[in-house]
Amino acid sequence: MSQVELVRIREVGPRDGFQNEPDQIPTAVKLEVIEALSNTGLDWIETTSFVHPKWVPQLADAEQVCAGLRHREGVTYVSFVPNQAGLNRASNAGIREVTCAITASDALNVRNFNRDTAAMLENVMALHGLARDKGIRISVTIGTAFGCPVEGDLPPGRVLDLARLLHGAGFDEIGLGDTTGVANPRQVRDIFRDALRELPDVTWVGHFHETRGTGVANVVAAFDAGVRTFDTSIAGLGGCPFAPGALGNVSTEDVANVFEEMGVSTGLNIDGLIAVSRMIEKHLGRRLYGRVSRAGRVAHGGGEGQVAATPPEPIPDGA
Amino acid sequence: MSQVELVRIREVGPRDGFQNEPDQIPTAVKLEVIEALSNTGLDWIETTSFVHPKWVPQLADAEQVCAGLRHREGVTYVSFVPNQAGLNRASNAGIREVTCAITASDALNVRNFNRDTAAMLENVMALHGLARDKGIRISVTIGTAFGCPVEGDLPPGRVLDLARLLHGAGFDEIGLGDTTGVANPRQVRDIFRDALRELPDVTWVGHFHETRGTGVANVVAAFDAGVRTFDTSIAGLGGCPFAPGALGNVSTEDVANVFEEMGVSTGLNIDGLIAVSRMIEKHLGRRLYGRVSRAGRVAHGGGEGQVAATPPEPIPDGA
Repeated sequence: MSQVELVRIREVGPRDGFQNEPDQIPTAVKLEVIEALSNTGLDWIETTSFVHPKWVPQLADAEQVCAGLRHREGVTYVSFVPNQAGLNRASNAGIREVTCAITASDALNVRNFNRDTAAMLENVMALHGLARDKGIRISVTIGTAFGCPVEGDLPPGRVLDLARLLHGAGFDEIGLGDTTGVANPRQVRDIFRDALRELPDVTWVGHFHETRGTGVANVVAAFDAGVRTFDTSIAGLGGCPFAPGALGNVSTEDVANVFEEMGVSTGLNIDGLIAVSRMIEKHLGRRLYGRVSRAGRVAHGGGEGQVAATPPEPIPDGA
Repeated sequence: MSQVELVRIREVGPRDGFQNEPDQIPTAVKLEVIEALSNTGLDWIETTSFVHPKWVPQLADAEQVCAGLRHREGVTYVSFVPNQAGLNRASNAGIREVTCAITASDALNVRNFNRDTAAMLENVMALHGLARDKGIRISVTIGTAFGCPVEGDLPPGRVLDLARLLHGAGFDEIGLGDTTGVANPRQVRDIFRDALRELPDVTWVGHFHETRGTGVANVVAAFDAGVRTFDTSIAGLGGCPFAPGALGNVSTEDVANVFEEMGVSTGLNIDGLIAVSRMIEKHLGRRLYGRVSRAGRVAHGGGEGQVAATPPEPIPDGA
């Protein structure tokens, strides 16, 4: 316990979160949020996606967002790219690091994209080659890695087989995504332990959702298995396309809080994250999902919050 | 992994949850909820509190609730008692098992109850003696066991010292309560490991809150330390008196879900719990906090929910 433990948080809210918002968010607001995030200690922010606007109209302003970024030193501004056309757009916009994704489920790939997993794999491998040629860093996330809403449980080994192929193609940073929040902590620990043992050179990323209230528990389970990089979304922005009204990504401030409370350093300013979370709530006009933003930080020196006039467990006298 | 793992869930919603509701809930509704809960596999339900009505007007109908219970075989209907007067009322109402509480923090005891922890300890010890004389089973929860909003961090050993005294006085079931949601999984694991090692004859109970989004993670951490009994609240009913608007108890359906997904048997019917959760939402006229009640159970065979018209990560063509 004498060595300092560190984790790295990848902020995905401006992409993975905003893309789930039904009402168009002005580009200026997106840029204000990204700039505020870049002042909280985050050094990796996924700002947008170069996906075709017909798929995600909310992110049709990807070029404008990238053009408007006020680059802060030490912060990497990352874009999601679905395919080579998207990577070319990102490159033209001056982006130096991108993410891409592949879904682990054959059934979901065929149903959503009319392609099997092999074809999807070809797509991300081509993306890796193109990115390398352009000198752009690229990482990949394997979606539905812990179970799929269409296929259900995945065959054992499917995810690790995919990861081996991706690593063989040159990917050195691979996320496992619990796209619909079906993972449980025991499964997460087992899968990541296997992954870290089998492919120790990969930087593994845990990407969890709160859809069923297991997001933070799964983050901690992945940490226990040795994972040190996590995708989170400010204010818990995001959703679950398979369960309307359900929650999406685990929230940045809640994950930062649990790690800092465990004595694991995130490098993040939690009060700053809470302020950004509240700023976004104000812009969107509704309460979002970060719990720490509602309750405030833990006051280790006491004097936390407001002491209730009526105690929770009255004990003396009466009755 | 060949032996069956079991956990026991103590449902505290009708007491710990309802007492935080500002609008008076009709006794008939409380009884309907308790009866519905007793049909979900729960065998321990905290139904009310014999606290003075001036402290918790919502539970002023404790006698009526107990008189109206339709006892289902195998289900224990438990009441909270703050003091001897409350225990006498519970006894007169025919209650055969009660819970009581003591706060670990001197500062909070003095501030809320104008008594130091020694005086509070005398109170629960007297309760234990009186309950024994009446043939009533009694358990105790140590509140703010992981930190206090007034005092901050507690001196090391404080909780275990208290537990030893309680065990010496005859308590054989002792809960550690994270009253304001300040606990983190590492701390929970450490404290419960010590507790189980030092007092192995005690049935330890984990009582966690979602105030900062760590409830399920702390439940899993306590389970890892060997705890097999947990307090939960249907729909996540409850609150945090020190943080208005923040969440309270961890939700029964979410805890049941995470354990069942981990292969740990709860004996609970999760669909039944979801139905009760929704019934309560209808009665209270607002959305509550159970995540599984919103998203539905995990569909291991696939075909879960509704597949989105717009895929979350469009990959093919275009852009």
